[in-house]
Amino acid sequence: MIRVAVLGATGSIGGSALDVIARHPERYRASVLASGTRVDELIALCRRHRPDHAVIADPAGHAALREGLAGAGLATEAHAGGEALARLAAEAADTVIAAIVGAAGVPSVLAAAEAGRRILLANKEAIVVAGDLVQAALSRSGGELLPVDSEHNALFQCLPQPAAAAGRHPAVRRIVLTASGGPFRGRSRDSLRAITPDEACAHPNWTMGRKISVDSATLMNKGLEVIEAHWLFGLEAGRIEVVVHPQSLVHSLVDYVDGSTLAQLGLPDMRTALAYGLAWPERIEAGVGPLDLISAGRLDFEPPDLNTFPALAHAFSALRQGIGATTVLNAANEVAVSAFLQRRMGFLDIADCLGAMLDEVDGQAGDDLTGRLDLDARTRRAAADWVARRH
Amino acid sequence: MIRVAVLGATGSIGGSALDVIARHPERYRASVLASGTRVDELIALCRRHRPDHAVIADPAGHAALREGLAGAGLATEAHAGGEALARLAAEAADTVIAAIVGAAGVPSVLAAAEAGRRILLANKEAIVVAGDLVQAALSRSGGELLPVDSEHNALFQCLPQPAAAAGRHPAVRRIVLTASGGPFRGRSRDSLRAITPDEACAHPNWTMGRKISVDSATLMNKGLEVIEAHWLFGLEAGRIEVVVHPQSLVHSLVDYVDGSTLAQLGLPDMRTALAYGLAWPERIEAGVGPLDLISAGRLDFEPPDLNTFPALAHAFSALRQGIGATTVLNAANEVAVSAFLQRRMGFLDIADCLGAMLDEVDGQAGDDLTGRLDLDARTRRAAADWVARRH
Repeated sequence: MIRVAVLGATGSIGGSALDVIARHPERYRASVLASGTRVDELIALCRRHRPDHAVIADPAGHAALREGLAGAGLATEAHAGGEALARLAAEAADTVIAAIVGAAGVPSVLAAAEAGRRILLANKEAIVVAGDLVQAALSRSGGELLPVDSEHNALFQCLPQPAAAAGRHPAVRRIVLTASGGPFRGRSRDSLRAITPDEACAHPNWTMGRKISVDSATLMNKGLEVIEAHWLFGLEAGRIEVVVHPQSLVHSLVDYVDGSTLAQLGLPDMRTALAYGLAWPERIEAGVGPLDLISAGRLDFEPPDLNTFPALAHAFSALRQGIGATTVLNAANEVAVSAFLQRRMGFLDIADCLGAMLDEVDGQAGDDLTGRLDLDARTRRAAADWVARRH
Repeated sequence: MIRVAVLGATGSIGGSALDVIARHPERYRASVLASGTRVDELIALCRRHRPDHAVIADPAGHAALREGLAGAGLATEAHAGGEALARLAAEAADTVIAAIVGAAGVPSVLAAAEAGRRILLANKEAIVVAGDLVQAALSRSGGELLPVDSEHNALFQCLPQPAAAAGRHPAVRRIVLTASGGPFRGRSRDSLRAITPDEACAHPNWTMGRKISVDSATLMNKGLEVIEAHWLFGLEAGRIEVVVHPQSLVHSLVDYVDGSTLAQLGLPDMRTALAYGLAWPERIEAGVGPLDLISAGRLDFEPPDLNTFPALAHAFSALRQGIGATTVLNAANEVAVSAFLQRRMGFLDIADCLGAMLDEVDGQAGDDLTGRLDLDARTRRAAADWVARRH
């Protein structure tokens, strides 16, 4: 019986993970459920899945969680705060599903990596900000990192097995991440000046949170994925490409030196990647039907428009500069997207802010998490200043 | 240094194989080159690749081969006939590229399987007629069978590794062979009545011999591939599907129970599959450039038209009946295609002949090669009679 910690249990990835786990009760058991602030939803999940531990990241929710669990007659222990989260990720699970959004999810990923766990990674920031530290911890501990966002999971499936994780991959010519192109594919730069947050959040193929929806509209999401692919698979920027594929059915591809291209396809359902990560190197049923190519009819491919979507170019540029620059890029993007969603600046200002922060912030990164989080914080302050000036 | 026997060296697959071998002289050496009747071309290849042995299948060519090799000052030994072919496949090579067309190639494949060699299989008949015998020999000897026609090689690449060979594959929902649809895709049955051999041989994507070109036009080639897939990978007829994909860039796909579909894509160049088979589980450079999805632009998929192309339906039906029926199907098809190419009957008569032979010939197969070849011969006689009656 494999104990699974679901960090970010009340989000959409957490829900998909719990669905897959519940389909295989003889094989998996949710041992830790964690949420940021949603106490009531977390208690409801504990009623259904009866974990050993529940964690609310916000300490203000501790009492309500404890009382709610006790009131429901559950033996689940209540915990609160980031330290408890990291400790339980390391100690109370065999597999950790890391689906907490943002920098808040980084310490628990590092703790799980240091403890030699299998990590199913849905938290981009852990890799963008601390990819080197996570990989170093995994090499020391023998832990496993399996990406579960659809593109990186596709790449993992198509890379040489069983060692798809960071290596030089001499047989790989390049990897190709597919991008839907977002809601503004085909639009000119000028036409995006007056875009509203609601327009930016209307993604054609996936239902997602607002932050990641905006990242998809700017193609910054793809930029962060390019950076993530570098750290996950050990490939330099020159061997990573992006192709726009509006149907979002081909999730990514790997080109080999013999002329073969391997691709992973599927319906847009997170359960596929989660089931793959849970069961790898085996496969288990995930509740997802087969892709019907005949009813899909056709698959299209086109180049990304870097003039209209300069955030993607900034991401390649930051990756070439190093982990300090990618940390700056990620922090600046969080601030800029937040300002856009609050209507404090326009859609095109997001990429402008990224470019300005890459120029302006000293990207000395240090080689520990403290230094990295300090750089993250410095960038956020600088980006907030930039937004205030622009506003 | 891996010794490679190229059986069918003067054909197009043989040429592609020798091209890949010559790119890696530190790793591979052509130790045996064999041809059916083309003595001069075989001698020319021996000058270039300096194998230990050259075999001409037609005994009438023995003296000319011996004298030609001696005249060229080569140490290559000259051999002739099917027995020498089978013996050298078993004894004088580590890897055997089995690219002799038709039933003539079957004994050497069986001999190599019994000797525990790695076989790169381009000879469909060995599997359609003796798939059970070849697999049984491989299990006894520990030999390896890697298909090198593009569809089965694609499936091998996409099936669970390292044991893609015949198993039950519980994680696989189905395999999907792609078909170009041939030169008559989209045509009605009636419009094909007066098709000439030259029209049938004008394949849109691949340059091939005339027999296989006609098989591609009738979709019988795909039917034989369905049967081959069954024996190669151990999957029953109900888990094998065919989808028409006119661009011939996606070579085949595997659907898994978790909702993943893995596909292998590439430019239509046999060297990719041959390099894969030679180097597996590694990959080597094959002289084939990467597939450019952006310049391809789009990939289309549609269902096969079984009304216009009933040969494909006959193949599924024969596969459900067993190895005797598939032996009958293959033998009847060789006779029927030959009669069509000789303008002794029409294009639509080919599939009619298959249906008639499946009804008419007693498909008792026996469980050795002698019984199988006897059934093959009986079917050829019955099909020749059918053609004479139709003529």
